[in-house]
Parts: sequence; C-alpha cells; structure tokens
Amino acid sequence: MKWFTEYWTDNVKFSIRIKKLVYTKETKFQKLEIYDSYEFGRFLTLDGYMMVNEKDEFIYHEMIVHVPMNVKPNVKNVLVIGGGDGGTVRELLRYNDLESIDMVEIDEEVVRACQEFLPLIAHKLNDSKVNLIFADGIEYVATTEKSYDLIIVDSTDPIGPGASLYKNQFYKDCYRILTEDGILVNQHESPYFDDTRSEMKKINKKLRAIFPLATVYQAFIPTYPSGHWLFGFASKKFTPDYRGNTDLLAKLKLRYYNQEVHKGSFALPNYVKEELR
Amino acid sequence: MKWFTEYWTDNVKFSIRIKKLVYTKETKFQKLEIYDSYEFGRFLTLDGYMMVNEKDEFIYHEMIVHVPMNVKPNVKNVLVIGGGDGGTVRELLRYNDLESIDMVEIDEEVVRACQEFLPLIAHKLNDSKVNLIFADGIEYVATTEKSYDLIIVDSTDPIGPGASLYKNQFYKDCYRILTEDGILVNQHESPYFDDTRSEMKKINKKLRAIFPLATVYQAFIPTYPSGHWLFGFASKKFTPDYRGNTDLLAKLKLRYYNQEVHKGSFALPNYVKEELR
Repeated sequence: MKWFTEYWTDNVKFSIRIKKLVYTKETKFQKLEIYDSYEFGRFLTLDGYMMVNEKDEFIYHEMIVHVPMNVKPNVKNVLVIGGGDGGTVRELLRYNDLESIDMVEIDEEVVRACQEFLPLIAHKLNDSKVNLIFADGIEYVATTEKSYDLIIVDSTDPIGPGASLYKNQFYKDCYRILTEDGILVNQHESPYFDDTRSEMKKINKKLRAIFPLATVYQAFIPTYPSGHWLFGFASKKFTPDYRGNTDLLAKLKLRYYNQEVHKGSFALPNYVKEELR
Repeated sequence: MKWFTEYWTDNVKFSIRIKKLVYTKETKFQKLEIYDSYEFGRFLTLDGYMMVNEKDEFIYHEMIVHVPMNVKPNVKNVLVIGGGDGGTVRELLRYNDLESIDMVEIDEEVVRACQEFLPLIAHKLNDSKVNLIFADGIEYVATTEKSYDLIIVDSTDPIGPGASLYKNQFYKDCYRILTEDGILVNQHESPYFDDTRSEMKKINKKLRAIFPLATVYQAFIPTYPSGHWLFGFASKKFTPDYRGNTDLLAKLKLRYYNQEVHKGSFALPNYVKEELR
C-alpha cells in the first residue's frame, strides 16, 4: 500500500504517502492502525479515520488544553473522556499546580498501542497524577461521585464508539459533576463541509440547552477535514476570555497557543456565526 | 477523468471529484482549465494548480480586500496586480467611496474565460471604475507615473508567470508608487509544509527590508495546501489595526470577514511567529 486516503466528503479526498503499516489490531471496539508516513511521521487511525499524527498533533492538543486552562485559573482536577493517545494528558501536565487527571478511555488497546508506537504523544500517561480508567465515559459520568473543575471530551467523531459522547444525557451528567464554575471543552467538528457542519450545529444546540454559555473556538489543523477545526467551549460561569499567567505561559514554550491566538480562536467568520445562531 | 488531484507536497495530495472539464486553453503564458465539480462548483486551474473555486473563493477575496480597506480609511485608488478572476475587484467595489481600480493582469485569456465561465466571481470586471490593463505587472509598476493608496498583489504562487511578483525590484517599485501612507497586500503562501514555508520566509524578509512594517495575516482556505493560508501586509505608516466603519461593514453582509476576524487574523501561532523572526 502506497497511500492512505481519507474521504473528507463523497467528493473530496485527502491522501498521504505511507512508508509502512506499523501495527494493526481489531480491538473490541474498533479497527486500530498505526502507519508511518513521509510527511506526517507516524499516525493513528480508528476505523479508517486519522485521529492523530506526529506532525500536527501539537495544534490539536495545545488548543484543547491551553484554552480552558487559561480561562479558569487554578484548575486542580480534570476529567478527560477519551484521549487514548495521551496528547491531552501531556499538555495538562505542563501545569504543576494541577493535582489530578482522571482519564476515562473505553479502549485500553488504544492506550497500549500509543504507548508503544507513539511515545512522543503518549509518554506522560504513566505520570503519578494520572488515573487511567478503562471504562465507558457515558457510564462513568452518570455514576461518579467526584466533581471536576474541567472536563475535556477528547473523542472521535460522532460515529462508532464515540457517538454517545454527543448525547444530551452525557452533557447533562457532565454539567452535574462540574464544579460551580466548571468548564467543558470538546471536539466539535468543522463548519466547512455539509456533514461536519450539520454535526457542529447539533452539538452546539445541545450544549446551549444545558450550559449558560456555549460557543466554539477554532484552530488550523491541516489533517482534519477542511483544516478548519472547532472545539466546543461550554461554561457554567466563565466567559472565554484569557485569564492566564503570562509569565508561566512563556515558560511552557508552546508551539501554537499564545494569548493572541486564544482571543483569535474565538473570532469566528460570519458564516460560522450564522450557522450557530 | 473523474478526479482532479493537486499534490500539496510530494507526499500529500488533495483530490476533488469532477463532473466535467468545461474549458481548456493553452494561453501565451500558461495552461488554463475550468472544471465543474460536485463539492466546489466550478473552479479555475493554471498550470494544474487550483486558483479559485466557487465554494470558498469568498474567503480568499474577502480577506485580501477587506483587511487593508479597514486598516486605512478613505482609500480612493487601488492597483490590483493579477486578480484575473475578478473576485478582488468585486470585493473592492463594495466601497462606494473608492474612485478607481487599475487592474494589471498579464493574461487577458484568464479574464475572458472567467467572465464567460465564472460570472459569479468575474461579473464586476466591466464596472466603470475598473481600468483593465493587460500587461506585465513588473513593467507596469516600474514605469507608471500614477500613485496608489493600496496595492493588492493577487498572484499565483512564486512559479510560472507569477514568479517575478515576488522579487525585490517589484516590491521596491510598489513602495515608490504607493502614497505616503500606502499599503501593499499580497498572496503569501502557507506556514505549514516545507516548500510554502520557505517561500513565506523569503517573501516576508524581502518586504521587511523595504517597508517599515511587514507582517502576515491568516485565513482558513480549505482548498489551498494545508488550509492555513497567509496574506502579506506591508505598510508605510499604518499598523494593521482595524479602523473601519462598523456600520458600513454591517451593510456589506460579508460571509467571512468581520472586525473580530480582522484582529484574529493577525494572531499568529507561535511556530509561525518563530519562522518569521
């Protein structure tokens, strides 16, 4: 096999020249593959869709973590739903004041494969602040008695095992287990092509029905369909303004996120604002 | 032929399912083709590279025009270099106070083909404020005695007939024919893949050597390599802050550009800022 191809719509495809298939496994939940490629280094696919690659994963992971971490000061405990590749945990652990991360991933095989084949992304999953829980995120949020300052839903698209992470009941349970000024951030599809735009609208509508404030922010992620990718920001109290510690931020030496990017990521084009109205 | 494919690098390709080839011509300068596609409507290619399509052209054209027009108040006369598809002229003409546009396009056949087959984009090229000049932009700026408030270099990539539009002498001539508070905006490649990033750095370096202020701003353009596309902003006097008439802007009913997008478009990710340092 010379090229890995992903259909962004029935009529648009994106292809990457690959060196080789590194690992493949039919897990209990999905088909997992790890390839090595010329342009993007190694990358993980689930059921044929690229989830993460070594070249641009920093954009996704910095933006799903540092935006909420710089909106709400003093986040102590975080719940990550999904996030099996470990990139979200790696970024969270840059904040020394953070006390604990519960990561609830349904598919242990994703974690194990990433630890073995994508260590640049997964190498912090063994950190002592991280509790790995291999369970269904829906059930976890429905039954846990813990509460969290921040919930990050780092999931696949609304198909396959990730579909339930876009349901009303899931968001209601997240709301319940968030502290009184808690924030939820999630993977929120793209505004550009019809299918992802339709998902974007549905997700935002559900979040707005439950949270006092629910909007989206954007990042340039070249390997996701259209390259214009969104994250959901749902909050009980905080507006999405930057309230970070700028000295600390400079020390983190991030490659994408900064204070101006924070603000710019919420500056949505008119056509996106209109779709969300 | 079922798919049009563009190689974004040797190892990455982007493909669009096409309905049919609408028009093809070997002009004096380049190979021109117009296709009809399922996802993007009609699109124009020059020497095999997609220049413009009906679905996302509004993003490119709004951003190359409305950013400078809202930095410098009272722009009266504009020079467009290239821009044969007519989208830049269409956006400029939304400002009634603008008095004249000189458009210098080297290849008349591009204009004629777009007028016939892409009227949604080209339909304003006959406006009485527009002077179409079919000539080499390099020679034009070297010899004209006119001066301009704004120059927009709406060119192809730095290969083929567009290559000279990225040379020092061209920028020096542009500087000379700009008014004392004039602005130049140009097509500035992308920061993401090696080849375009290398071009981005060269262009910015040249502009900085000539203009007191030269930076870049960005937009989400899904059909250009990586979807993260840049425009150059080079200025004799004005910083790139928004100084627009917000009431007027609301009346224009733009689909991408707004005041927040203006500011956000200059909020560059750290890795881009570092490359431009």
